[in-house]
Amino acid sequence: MSPIPSPVQVPAPGRKPVITRDDIVAAALKLVGPQRSVSSLSLREVAREAGIAPNSFYRHFHDMDELAVALIELAGRSLRDIIGSARSRARTDASVVRSSIEVFVAQLRSDDRLLHILLREGNVGSDAFKQAVERQLTFFEEELTLDLVRLARAERTGLYEPALTARAITRLVFAIAATAMDQPADQQAQLTEQLIQMVRMIVAGTQTLAAQSREDAQVAVR
Amino acid sequence: MSPIPSPVQVPAPGRKPVITRDDIVAAALKLVGPQRSVSSLSLREVAREAGIAPNSFYRHFHDMDELAVALIELAGRSLRDIIGSARSRARTDASVVRSSIEVFVAQLRSDDRLLHILLREGNVGSDAFKQAVERQLTFFEEELTLDLVRLARAERTGLYEPALTARAITRLVFAIAATAMDQPADQQAQLTEQLIQMVRMIVAGTQTLAAQSREDAQVAVR
Repeated sequence: MSPIPSPVQVPAPGRKPVITRDDIVAAALKLVGPQRSVSSLSLREVAREAGIAPNSFYRHFHDMDELAVALIELAGRSLRDIIGSARSRARTDASVVRSSIEVFVAQLRSDDRLLHILLREGNVGSDAFKQAVERQLTFFEEELTLDLVRLARAERTGLYEPALTARAITRLVFAIAATAMDQPADQQAQLTEQLIQMVRMIVAGTQTLAAQSREDAQVAVR
Repeated sequence: MSPIPSPVQVPAPGRKPVITRDDIVAAALKLVGPQRSVSSLSLREVAREAGIAPNSFYRHFHDMDELAVALIELAGRSLRDIIGSARSRARTDASVVRSSIEVFVAQLRSDDRLLHILLREGNVGSDAFKQAVERQLTFFEEELTLDLVRLARAERTGLYEPALTARAITRLVFAIAATAMDQPADQQAQLTEQLIQMVRMIVAGTQTLAAQSREDAQVAVR
């Protein structure tokens, strides 16, 4: 993974001689925060934080946009892994909702800031950047759709428009979490319960609408 | 409303001699766009757009943050007015959902950019700014809570956690609309139908959960 240092480049004192793509991503991560979006970072700042000359940046990324997209992809992948493993441990409908939300809210408090980037940055920045956020949320929705279908089969409940249901759940949870990002840690339990109730509301709604449209279809057949 | 021009200030050629607070807000509105957030505007830019000297800005606003908050308040107020009048024309549960969403989506396409500011800027910017966005969304939720209670009484349906239901609807609609802001106009009809179905899902959910908790209460009483 380590790039071969170019022979003409003599590292300046205090600069790391060899730097990887991941080091630059890590440096950018350190700079973002509640009032600092990824799209507002400058190449010069990131290079300084990573301890490299600005020109060396281009050996790893075409431009700042490519770095921003790499950050978003890392954030999405890591969150899907964490929630995916929480889901696979849960067995019932109710416990899947609770364990996924609990893990998600715990991530809000984690130090790695990855979830913050996904939550904060969807609506600002370049088109490439917005599309990268959108793609990650869509991956979430697709996995959740499969889960909803599997659970509805296992528990023999109806499911009205699975993809739309998954989209409503994903977008609502991300939106509420985005507003709660900067809340003190002692409100975490309250946030968790609120999100669980909202998701249960949507799940109850999709089941009710499925039952209604089944009845409508039966009436039409008679 | 027009401020009295200070006697020492001689307007430069091409600069308006008298400028109001609203003129500065309008100038800032012209500058924001899909890749330009309110919090990234500089005082100098806004002053130039308004045709005033940078110093004159301070006769109307304490700082850029105060201007940003004024923009958010204007955006929230105008959207509540528009949706409020759509709601008051509607009579039934289903028609309230449809007419509110239709007016909301039409606003996405309007030229005044006010809704865009509310949708885009909630998660970036200073604390004062984020709180201003949050306050506007909370006003929406409070009005929607009253509407939900009124409709549930009129139609004799249950309502589980009215405030939580209103919050879920408001946040979901804003989140989905934020991702659709830059979509071409021909997808407007599809967005409208998607939002209507999602809101109906939440309404069906809150009614189902209300009925369930009523049954649980009756079982507990026996």
